[in-house]
Amino acid sequence: MSHNTFGHLFRVTTWGESHGPALGCVVDGCPPGIRFTVADIQAELDRRRPGQSRFVTQRREPDQVKVLSGVVADEAHPDTLVTTGTPISMMIENVDQRSKDYGEIAQQYRPGHADYAYDVKYGVRDYRGGGRSSARETAARVAAGALARKVVPGLVVRGALVAMGEKEIDRDNWNWGFVESGDNPFFTPDPASVAVFADYLDEVRKAGSSVGALIEIVAEGVPAGLGAPVYAKLDQDIASNLMSINAVKGVEIGDGFATARMTGEENADEMRIGNDGKPLFLANHAGGILGGISTGQPVVARFAVKPTSSILTPRRSVDVEGKEVDVRTKGRHDPCVGIRAVPIGEAMVACAIADHYLRHRGQTGR
Amino acid sequence: MSHNTFGHLFRVTTWGESHGPALGCVVDGCPPGIRFTVADIQAELDRRRPGQSRFVTQRREPDQVKVLSGVVADEAHPDTLVTTGTPISMMIENVDQRSKDYGEIAQQYRPGHADYAYDVKYGVRDYRGGGRSSARETAARVAAGALARKVVPGLVVRGALVAMGEKEIDRDNWNWGFVESGDNPFFTPDPASVAVFADYLDEVRKAGSSVGALIEIVAEGVPAGLGAPVYAKLDQDIASNLMSINAVKGVEIGDGFATARMTGEENADEMRIGNDGKPLFLANHAGGILGGISTGQPVVARFAVKPTSSILTPRRSVDVEGKEVDVRTKGRHDPCVGIRAVPIGEAMVACAIADHYLRHRGQTGR
Amino acid sequence: MSHNTFGHLFRVTTWGESHGPALGCVVDGCPPGIRFTVADIQAELDRRRPGQSRFVTQRREPDQVKVLSGVVADEAHPDTLVTTGTPISMMIENVDQRSKDYGEIAQQYRPGHADYAYDVKYGVRDYRGGGRSSARETAARVAAGALARKVVPGLVVRGALVAMGEKEIDRDNWNWGFVESGDNPFFTPDPASVAVFADYLDEVRKAGSSVGALIEIVAEGVPAGLGAPVYAKLDQDIASNLMSINAVKGVEIGDGFATARMTGEENADEMRIGNDGKPLFLANHAGGILGGISTGQPVVARFAVKPTSSILTPRRSVDVEGKEVDVRTKGRHDPCVGIRAVPIGEAMVACAIADHYLRHRGQTGR
Amino acid sequence: MSHNTFGHLFRVTTWGESHGPALGCVVDGCPPGIRFTVADIQAELDRRRPGQSRFVTQRREPDQVKVLSGVVADEAHPDTLVTTGTPISMMIENVDQRSKDYGEIAQQYRPGHADYAYDVKYGVRDYRGGGRSSARETAARVAAGALARKVVPGLVVRGALVAMGEKEIDRDNWNWGFVESGDNPFFTPDPASVAVFADYLDEVRKAGSSVGALIEIVAEGVPAGLGAPVYAKLDQDIASNLMSINAVKGVEIGDGFATARMTGEENADEMRIGNDGKPLFLANHAGGILGGISTGQPVVARFAVKPTSSILTPRRSVDVEGKEVDVRTKGRHDPCVGIRAVPIGEAMVACAIADHYLRHRGQTGR
Repeated sequence: MSHNTFGHLFRVTTWGESHGPALGCVVDGCPPGIRFTVADIQAELDRRRPGQSRFVTQRREPDQVKVLSGVVADEAHPDTLVTTGTPISMMIENVDQRSKDYGEIAQQYRPGHADYAYDVKYGVRDYRGGGRSSARETAARVAAGALARKVVPGLVVRGALVAMGEKEIDRDNWNWGFVESGDNPFFTPDPASVAVFADYLDEVRKAGSSVGALIEIVAEGVPAGLGAPVYAKLDQDIASNLMSINAVKGVEIGDGFATARMTGEENADEMRIGNDGKPLFLANHAGGILGGISTGQPVVARFAVKPTSSILTPRRSVDVEGKEVDVRTKGRHDPCVGIRAVPIGEAMVACAIADHYLRHRGQTGR
Repeated sequence: MSHNTFGHLFRVTTWGESHGPALGCVVDGCPPGIRFTVADIQAELDRRRPGQSRFVTQRREPDQVKVLSGVVADEAHPDTLVTTGTPISMMIENVDQRSKDYGEIAQQYRPGHADYAYDVKYGVRDYRGGGRSSARETAARVAAGALARKVVPGLVVRGALVAMGEKEIDRDNWNWGFVESGDNPFFTPDPASVAVFADYLDEVRKAGSSVGALIEIVAEGVPAGLGAPVYAKLDQDIASNLMSINAVKGVEIGDGFATARMTGEENADEMRIGNDGKPLFLANHAGGILGGISTGQPVVARFAVKPTSSILTPRRSVDVEGKEVDVRTKGRHDPCVGIRAVPIGEAMVACAIADHYLRHRGQTGR
Repeated sequence: MSHNTFGHLFRVTTWGESHGPALGCVVDGCPPGIRFTVADIQAELDRRRPGQSRFVTQRREPDQVKVLSGVVADEAHPDTLVTTGTPISMMIENVDQRSKDYGEIAQQYRPGHADYAYDVKYGVRDYRGGGRSSARETAARVAAGALARKVVPGLVVRGALVAMGEKEIDRDNWNWGFVESGDNPFFTPDPASVAVFADYLDEVRKAGSSVGALIEIVAEGVPAGLGAPVYAKLDQDIASNLMSINAVKGVEIGDGFATARMTGEENADEMRIGNDGKPLFLANHAGGILGGISTGQPVVARFAVKPTSSILTPRRSVDVEGKEVDVRTKGRHDPCVGIRAVPIGEAMVACAIADHYLRHRGQTGR
Repeated sequence: MSHNTFGHLFRVTTWGESHGPALGCVVDGCPPGIRFTVADIQAELDRRRPGQSRFVTQRREPDQVKVLSGVVADEAHPDTLVTTGTPISMMIENVDQRSKDYGEIAQQYRPGHADYAYDVKYGVRDYRGGGRSSARETAARVAAGALARKVVPGLVVRGALVAMGEKEIDRDNWNWGFVESGDNPFFTPDPASVAVFADYLDEVRKAGSSVGALIEIVAEGVPAGLGAPVYAKLDQDIASNLMSINAVKGVEIGDGFATARMTGEENADEMRIGNDGKPLFLANHAGGILGGISTGQPVVARFAVKPTSSILTPRRSVDVEGKEVDVRTKGRHDPCVGIRAVPIGEAMVACAIADHYLRHRGQTGR
């Protein structure tokens, strides 16, 4: 991957900082003839948008997407855009860049943030709102992911928050339909978990603290044969895409880290012939990928999001002049950045699959 | 990443199957003037080599590396090679391709193996010894990694097996020196664990079974400033490199998945000014990387290796003609492929760091 | 190169069509700390801008560039922007999209245009103003090139039109200063040629015809050592960049095609030691590049621009329904697109050199 | 392009120096199921092989290719290899590395050679036989090109020498069949030119001099639709590939530089409906490519090869210690390197077309 581009044939380049005039992406290599509406993109962006509950940052951003290139309007249905195979540029303007004094943030290195590493690397830093490391950058990914979902016929990519701090869902209650329910500010698939998470996060928020989370993404309708044996493994590129999300510290596929404790008998997904005469897997420990190549089973990935380091509790640090300071991060922050990571994770998985779908087609003609 | 290439400026392309005449790699972009001996490369290969204890596959491969290009001999010390900045081709001949009847393997899909996925993807398959998915491919990575270690001045990359199946090391006993000790067939850093692992694995082996493992890689001497904020994060590329190793199902950086359970206070690595007047971190939950950029602390990564699916216990499967069969994988196999994954993981981390070292220098001149 | 991206470390992605709302580019990998003003970029864009004389298209586009990301304002000089090392997004809005009936263009394949090839390739086409193949796309290149010029200290890239149709300049009159003179609508370095070109092009224009041109680009201050021996040759990447410009049908470096007629004695650039004790070349047949690597001499490239196919004279063609038609291209067109290709060629050469400057620094540390 | 890799989906990495043990290539991304024999590859290598007439270098290299990976033997026809979709490694051992004293070459910069540029760039140089810049490197390209030819069904790529120094062929005598005739040491398509070229080159050779040449490559059977509008133009990538060949100083497509002198009327390739009801071009000034996309017409490219700088006539130069010297290059050299450039040019064009064939299929599914 390049610094700000990911994907080979379905390539996404993102740009923009938290406090500049806008942010956006250029999607290159999208097949021609893909039909979508701006509302399709907007719907995904709205899922990620801040300010929708008390559990996420109160920054008010409408996150209205503009599609600037790469499409023509369908003559019969002018709201429907048709991709032309040329680069699709999408832009989202920043609206709520609250003016404030950045003196402290400009001078101090916030523990757990990239401030210090930025200064060492670049010698110059856009300290306003985290600059390029702002969670706002992920809006561009979600817009690109909304297109990626349409590239692979039959692909459905869904995500859910499965743990927050010390609280976990009950997987027996898993209900995909509930994830998108209006009463669910957490993308949790377990209705019983809402009250638990709400109480827990209220406490965390009031304490000026933050917590981590665990997200699970499931992609159904992934054709068998995507990926490659060594350095273009489908699981590898999904892991890479997910690790590129801010605050992600771990990724696993299928049974993931649990396989380290398993035996070969437990881990092997046995096969039989199904009623349709086709091979049928009796389990999915592999998470839909064997030897780097999709098997046709659902692709399952999980990732861990660390607690944001923007907390009210003072932490010991140093400033740009080498003095020791105590840092306390005021302002609007997500007490659990993992919540809004759900649609972002979906987008990144969708982009990886779309890219491999085109790569597989290129190499094999299938 | 391309199908068989990884890295941007320090680029490694590998080739070769288990049962072809040879395998190898081409390292492109290596800086000129790097000095090494063939023995340096061989020493790393010997660590990964099969047949060195009863706990790994009994295939006998000398794994002798030949350096075919990209170097000139030092006039004063002819054993010392000096890189010229042109591509370095290294080759390892396959010697012990035991002739046997591949009829069953050619016809049956081994559960947990990539056989079925290969056939769907390519329509043709080199079934002998796993073809491109053979663990032999990783010898090429280790050779490349031996060079990568020399690219970054002061870099030390070490790895250790920290868990095998249900058995874990005691981290209080951690002794890097012991990892390379002659009495240690497991790359474990805990001397007390050798007997435990040996008994456990003997049982597993006798049962015709296999187990997974957990490996930890620590890179010291990584300069601060390597990586980038979004899609060329150092942790992302390390994760991608590690996930590209056969049988790896999960990767984490620093505290990894544990951060999902932590609060912001616990997770933030506080800073003070050290005795040398430089910033000093008081903890390393981040595993040496913040916002995708190295901080100068040790870089810490862990990965989970699943149990090999090549086991003697029969498993239900299907064959290429769509018939249901029971598969029992005979032959020479590692009961715990995670053991030999230690030097491979080191190599992949070293390659990621060398690549980012050159990329950082290219962009910033530092 | 990807479909809409060029360069490896100094990477430029462009997007936008002639008749969409805007076009632009994302420059990724630019070193941090580069200082520039919007006026610097605008000055280059103004050189390429249409509507500035009767010899170029009368489309009225202000081509005002907006810098949307990747910079912070210098505190002392707020007009001065400083690059942060993150992606620089620049946008130019389309203003003068004259509304007209595209019926004929949508239905007919204009000879010499890409209309037919587009339809075969993509099955859908943005026929308005040539879509992605519009000369307007080149504004994005010029903006990127304005930044590239600042990446390499001491680099000066200049271009000149040296022939138009059957008329050539007299090289003995070469005056770089005159190229930018206000009385020179042709970027010619030969003051005596202005009247000749003006009369000639007036005739061509009145005849509803068009002519080709020959452009020469000279880059001074290129450090020795940029490029590589085989597939990252500096001349190769310059040629690739120039060939990517619309309507370019040939590229040569140094003495170029003339070398096919030369002997080894004539072609070799001899060397002596200069007064400064450094190697001194006595000629520059090589155009500043030997074995793909810059020698420190001026880099010289020339490219041929074909006459635009948008002419008033009817040409035989076919339409999308397979009927034979006669096509006559009305509207605002450049009678000699080669004129405005001068600043575009400069930009593309500057980008190639900036990219190789960073790549060389990455590999060698120099 | 990377330093030693070209192509995106059909990717070729080459390695090896003139005087190392071997050279070779890795072809990555080749579709599975392509059938070929080693003799197919060898036949192309034999066309490029030195020592076949008095007009080329007398170095005796059998250039026997070994295929080391990426294939399985066809069970019914064991000589037939079938690609598996994994990387194909091919190796050619160097045999005739004549031992000699390289003292002078190591110390002196040969004018017109890359010696000086190498030393500035890398600070270390494999001076034996030109190192990486040796024409031997092109054997690897020819091997890769032999595979590329088989990737696109119906593709035929042929080349011819059309001028040598001041002598040109008569295009009215063009006979493709004669190019491969046993009596034709020049790849000329004009039987009448053989005597002319032979006499001319004998003179050049006896004078210890060298001459340049002009080569034309024609690819037939290129499907319409390959390429892209801006930075992945088919003509651009062909130009880039050809410019990557040693000693090439210029490339043109179709009418090339001549279009700079043409009018729009002359240059436009008119269209009618052919007898088969399909669009038919009435001319091919464009060389088969419009707007960067193939039209289905033959693709025509020409390139200029400079005279080799390895000549007996002494030339003024400097040495590594900064002293002025006279250089006279003894040894075995091609008096006209352009001759053997014909199969190399074909290979590079075939690779560009194969790559775009896969890229087009990936993006569009056609």
